[in-house]
Amino acid sequence: MSAATNAFGRVLTVTTFGESHGPAIGCVIDGFPPGLEITAEEIRSELMRRATGQSRHTSQRKEKEEVQLLSGFFEGRTTGTPIALLIQNTDARSKDYSKIAAQFRPGHADYTYHHKYGLRDYRGGGRSSARETAMRVAAAALAKKYLRQQLGIEVTGWMAQIGDQVCDEHFDPDVINTNPFFCPDADKVPELEAFMKRLWKSGDSVGALVKARATGVPVGLGAPVYGKLDVDLASAMMSINAVKGVEIGAGFRSVAQKGTEHRDEITPDGFLSNHAGGVLGGISTGQPIEVAVAFKPTSSLRLPGKTVDTDGQPAEIITTGRHDPCVGIRAIPIVEAMLALTVMDHYLLHRAQCGDVGPQSPLIPG
Amino acid sequence: MSAATNAFGRVLTVTTFGESHGPAIGCVIDGFPPGLEITAEEIRSELMRRATGQSRHTSQRKEKEEVQLLSGFFEGRTTGTPIALLIQNTDARSKDYSKIAAQFRPGHADYTYHHKYGLRDYRGGGRSSARETAMRVAAAALAKKYLRQQLGIEVTGWMAQIGDQVCDEHFDPDVINTNPFFCPDADKVPELEAFMKRLWKSGDSVGALVKARATGVPVGLGAPVYGKLDVDLASAMMSINAVKGVEIGAGFRSVAQKGTEHRDEITPDGFLSNHAGGVLGGISTGQPIEVAVAFKPTSSLRLPGKTVDTDGQPAEIITTGRHDPCVGIRAIPIVEAMLALTVMDHYLLHRAQCGDVGPQSPLIPG
Amino acid sequence: MSAATNAFGRVLTVTTFGESHGPAIGCVIDGFPPGLEITAEEIRSELMRRATGQSRHTSQRKEKEEVQLLSGFFEGRTTGTPIALLIQNTDARSKDYSKIAAQFRPGHADYTYHHKYGLRDYRGGGRSSARETAMRVAAAALAKKYLRQQLGIEVTGWMAQIGDQVCDEHFDPDVINTNPFFCPDADKVPELEAFMKRLWKSGDSVGALVKARATGVPVGLGAPVYGKLDVDLASAMMSINAVKGVEIGAGFRSVAQKGTEHRDEITPDGFLSNHAGGVLGGISTGQPIEVAVAFKPTSSLRLPGKTVDTDGQPAEIITTGRHDPCVGIRAIPIVEAMLALTVMDHYLLHRAQCGDVGPQSPLIPG
Amino acid sequence: MSAATNAFGRVLTVTTFGESHGPAIGCVIDGFPPGLEITAEEIRSELMRRATGQSRHTSQRKEKEEVQLLSGFFEGRTTGTPIALLIQNTDARSKDYSKIAAQFRPGHADYTYHHKYGLRDYRGGGRSSARETAMRVAAAALAKKYLRQQLGIEVTGWMAQIGDQVCDEHFDPDVINTNPFFCPDADKVPELEAFMKRLWKSGDSVGALVKARATGVPVGLGAPVYGKLDVDLASAMMSINAVKGVEIGAGFRSVAQKGTEHRDEITPDGFLSNHAGGVLGGISTGQPIEVAVAFKPTSSLRLPGKTVDTDGQPAEIITTGRHDPCVGIRAIPIVEAMLALTVMDHYLLHRAQCGDVGPQSPLIPG
Repeated sequence: MSAATNAFGRVLTVTTFGESHGPAIGCVIDGFPPGLEITAEEIRSELMRRATGQSRHTSQRKEKEEVQLLSGFFEGRTTGTPIALLIQNTDARSKDYSKIAAQFRPGHADYTYHHKYGLRDYRGGGRSSARETAMRVAAAALAKKYLRQQLGIEVTGWMAQIGDQVCDEHFDPDVINTNPFFCPDADKVPELEAFMKRLWKSGDSVGALVKARATGVPVGLGAPVYGKLDVDLASAMMSINAVKGVEIGAGFRSVAQKGTEHRDEITPDGFLSNHAGGVLGGISTGQPIEVAVAFKPTSSLRLPGKTVDTDGQPAEIITTGRHDPCVGIRAIPIVEAMLALTVMDHYLLHRAQCGDVGPQSPLIPG
Repeated sequence: MSAATNAFGRVLTVTTFGESHGPAIGCVIDGFPPGLEITAEEIRSELMRRATGQSRHTSQRKEKEEVQLLSGFFEGRTTGTPIALLIQNTDARSKDYSKIAAQFRPGHADYTYHHKYGLRDYRGGGRSSARETAMRVAAAALAKKYLRQQLGIEVTGWMAQIGDQVCDEHFDPDVINTNPFFCPDADKVPELEAFMKRLWKSGDSVGALVKARATGVPVGLGAPVYGKLDVDLASAMMSINAVKGVEIGAGFRSVAQKGTEHRDEITPDGFLSNHAGGVLGGISTGQPIEVAVAFKPTSSLRLPGKTVDTDGQPAEIITTGRHDPCVGIRAIPIVEAMLALTVMDHYLLHRAQCGDVGPQSPLIPG
Repeated sequence: MSAATNAFGRVLTVTTFGESHGPAIGCVIDGFPPGLEITAEEIRSELMRRATGQSRHTSQRKEKEEVQLLSGFFEGRTTGTPIALLIQNTDARSKDYSKIAAQFRPGHADYTYHHKYGLRDYRGGGRSSARETAMRVAAAALAKKYLRQQLGIEVTGWMAQIGDQVCDEHFDPDVINTNPFFCPDADKVPELEAFMKRLWKSGDSVGALVKARATGVPVGLGAPVYGKLDVDLASAMMSINAVKGVEIGAGFRSVAQKGTEHRDEITPDGFLSNHAGGVLGGISTGQPIEVAVAFKPTSSLRLPGKTVDTDGQPAEIITTGRHDPCVGIRAIPIVEAMLALTVMDHYLLHRAQCGDVGPQSPLIPG
Repeated sequence: MSAATNAFGRVLTVTTFGESHGPAIGCVIDGFPPGLEITAEEIRSELMRRATGQSRHTSQRKEKEEVQLLSGFFEGRTTGTPIALLIQNTDARSKDYSKIAAQFRPGHADYTYHHKYGLRDYRGGGRSSARETAMRVAAAALAKKYLRQQLGIEVTGWMAQIGDQVCDEHFDPDVINTNPFFCPDADKVPELEAFMKRLWKSGDSVGALVKARATGVPVGLGAPVYGKLDVDLASAMMSINAVKGVEIGAGFRSVAQKGTEHRDEITPDGFLSNHAGGVLGGISTGQPIEVAVAFKPTSSLRLPGKTVDTDGQPAEIITTGRHDPCVGIRAIPIVEAMLALTVMDHYLLHRAQCGDVGPQSPLIPG
């Protein structure tokens, strides 16, 4: 780990900056390989998957997400020097937030930022807003393309549960990107529509369970102990706003499993199961990497709640801004982004120590 | 994150080394404050809580855990220079493992280490053995004492579930350290004894759910985005051998919760609940930090399983060494250790940026 | 050190991005304390000291250096979240460089970037241009103000030698900022004017010796071994474009010194000399920090030189763009910047481990 | 940079620990490639080049330098897991130092450690002793062998000047390791013998100029801005005890050079000179890497000097322990070590971002 808390990655470092209602958000990607061709439009198309305003189930903030490539590119390709991406904030309505300047919204970072730093940018949550995650998706647009071209790796995220509605009992990967919930079960979509409509009316919110998978990951990515692939996946996922839990493979189901059930037996044709989630001893097995992430329900609600103001006096709070009733929906591209960035980082780290995947260090015979 | 994968921490860095059956294991602690008085015996007493051989429910490997203080101490106090701790491996029986040199144990790191590095120390799992975690407990002995003296912080871990046996329905903190399961429910202990006995006879193993809590943590520890306190807790916990899942506060229960239920309302007397687990926006709230960790069942079993050998040929494997039927039992002091180290690291990091806890930077009026 | 090569600092991390002829340059400052009041205009006034076009002795590129504060500020003060600064490149004339796209300029990074990355942004040197250093000066504007307010630290750089012209035999600190050479000897300025005029006519360039001093630095900043204050100063200075050597205190004069001469004796009134340059064992003594930095002569010359093109064929090169005949002149604010950033970083690092300067850790009695 | 100040390197991280008079010194090497065959005896033979007691010109402390390989090896080869090396301190005579417990030795770290940490291990300088550098030499024994086998890189250091005695006017590489001064001029050795004899009699000490060269370094190692190869060399060298200055290539001679002289012209047969010292824009050119390092004279003298005691009272100090009259002599293997470690670190870092040296990333055509 580094003392820089706004950066992520070991040899592929992504540093983000910006607040919800500041002039812009951006990121710097350090250590990215040279030679990748990618356009601003390709990056933007990933961003639009995350963007608000694309369905009536998510916040109505409408950002154009026009991404500027400020450095690290020449004639359409990455140069190996730091890549800087910038997005202007164009639809930030600060007036929505002025009334809560002196109040701490329950379930938000208002209270903790205030006490840590002695002052805070209260507009839309400032730095603690999920607006920051747009830059992860932008950075991961490069990582996804690189992983696909170099190693044939594909990353897919989906909605597994919204509130009490399980969404992935039937799993059709082609369905995921054709509905506003990233639900892999076409039959479930109308139910979710109805569920969300009722939720919206109630004024309340729900949590979500998001899953993601990376296929094509070669055996050997990861490292011992504190640099395990699953360690970095855990921190990658937990860094996403509203996340309260992370599982790899069987996750919490492992608690009640027997060893004979959990251990994935091996045959000459491969593993017989994947309770490990594609990681053993912190290193990829060649099976799909499987991650599950728990998102808490949105804390910003029009239903009143108890809080205190900055003077410590009791207050009742109602949040009237634009908010998703289920923040997990827009999180699917973010979970994918963090999975892609983590896998790519470990690919580069492996290359540093052991040379490229497959043919090992020439010092090792056989 | 740093490219050094055997190190943990942002400003308080713990680097560990050593293998299960090598001559010794050790750690280097960089950035520890000067002036803490602590003895080798105090460190050893923490180590003995984790040590094998203390009950019939855990592996019968008997290590003395005599810890040597190789550097960073003068006249019984830490000096501010790097602290090195070393423990000789005295009860490593390598012959137990020789027969599996050419086989990959399912559920273990054998397969992945072999393919990543091209060679591996197969004796007892080498670097991937949980023997490494002794050094975390040793390092955390210093952190725990420092946190207690400086800030009044206490860290407590306990067994919440073994297999399908829930252990913390009744919670008495005084019971935790008086039984071999770290179970906080005295009435449950005989049942666990019987359960473990049956398990041992069956030759199978089970997973475990371990929880831990830190009390007395002041508001303000943590940092934005990738350096959140819960991000570092997630990576700290996931780095422990056999861990498959991590939760903060309500964790995966958040998925089905409503926002009105999950958000912890605030009154002048404090928060009305702690679904957040003591962290909002990645920064401590002043409430107890609450973590839950899922451990998978032991993969080393005397019940035969399918595998392949290093030539890719099918094989049947039986593991006859000394192994815990539930690795989660000995993990409680390790979970405590990682919680203590993470909190202390963030306390020092906070001090770097904001000065000491409480009185903020003198530049901020009021 | 971190694998991120475009970032500098241990707990106060400055990441820069941008190329000479890209759309913009910028930086992200992570870990800066909250509460500092500073305006874009204050930052810009530091930038103008470095800016080209302010005298006929430096390159005629004229940048407005309007700095945008993109994040980390609220109501005029730093918030503790990452600070992002951006400067649009407005006077980049790419046509000047098109003719050298296929040639490697001797003394420049053209050859090495080409071979490392397989492609390069040849416009104005791309990432290897000294344009990047503007962001260091911008970041250091904050550090300088913080150090002055918190600790009374002042940082001063000056020109000590241009080519064979020694400039600081008579030292008057008030003179430094009143002439285009940052020369501390008023009588020497006319000679330097004449010297530079002759140099300009000749078409050749010269090197420079820049010195800098930080006063008011408390005893105790720095750390053992690889994190010595002078270690970080050495890397800070060597990272500036065109630097070929760094000295602390007596520097290379130490080689021929006797021990009785070099060692700075101590009396109750303080040290009797400062050959150490304010650092002993890597930790500040409380005396002024003294650094000297050697800059090589500009390699871009209108006098023809031998080179090869990207096909390996011999070529004669003449560089016709706008170039300083002595790059060291504009480097003085950059040297100051790196000195200020390094000292501030170590102040924060000290605070992490030992608490604030002066009253030591409460665990240490007396 | 990382907050861990006792560690060095970006992807090949060396962490050292131990004090002059503690029980042992050691290091942990993280990120070293698997498969290198090396024995403890090979490491020891490098250590003996640095060891004291090998000539009457260096300190009479006699250490056996028996190095223990505690982890990271299996069947004689590195495994890719962290390498730990340990050397017991066997000839530490603490009684020599007891009398200076309450005094600050001028030119030493006594004063600064005391004020930074509030306490210090005064025995032989504790952590600030050059004893620590033995571990750099040990770690570099592995790096040297790896660089030689993988890339044909050779690293050579030599004494260029002792006090006012220039030693490398005639340069014969075969002479360097055949005399106690690492002097490359056989004719100069008797003069140096006489010079050192007079110096010893006088009770005084002198500084030294040490140079080193790495040949066979491929083009392309290094990185932009703060991760320049010369940046890391500067910090590597400045981290060695008693170093006050570092030069790359022409170094401080660059100040008075003309651009036409300094810039190394290029022909199809290669560069016509090497004022750059093998680095342009922070990236290796394929020419030899050339470094020069200034060592200050030993501060520990039997000639009395003024100081204060820990109560601030004036005192006269005489240091009677075993001390080298020129610390630079034993520093040659250390300078070599830091050069080798830095080059290897950048080779691995290059491999992470760009793949192996030579054939660039497959994404780049041509």
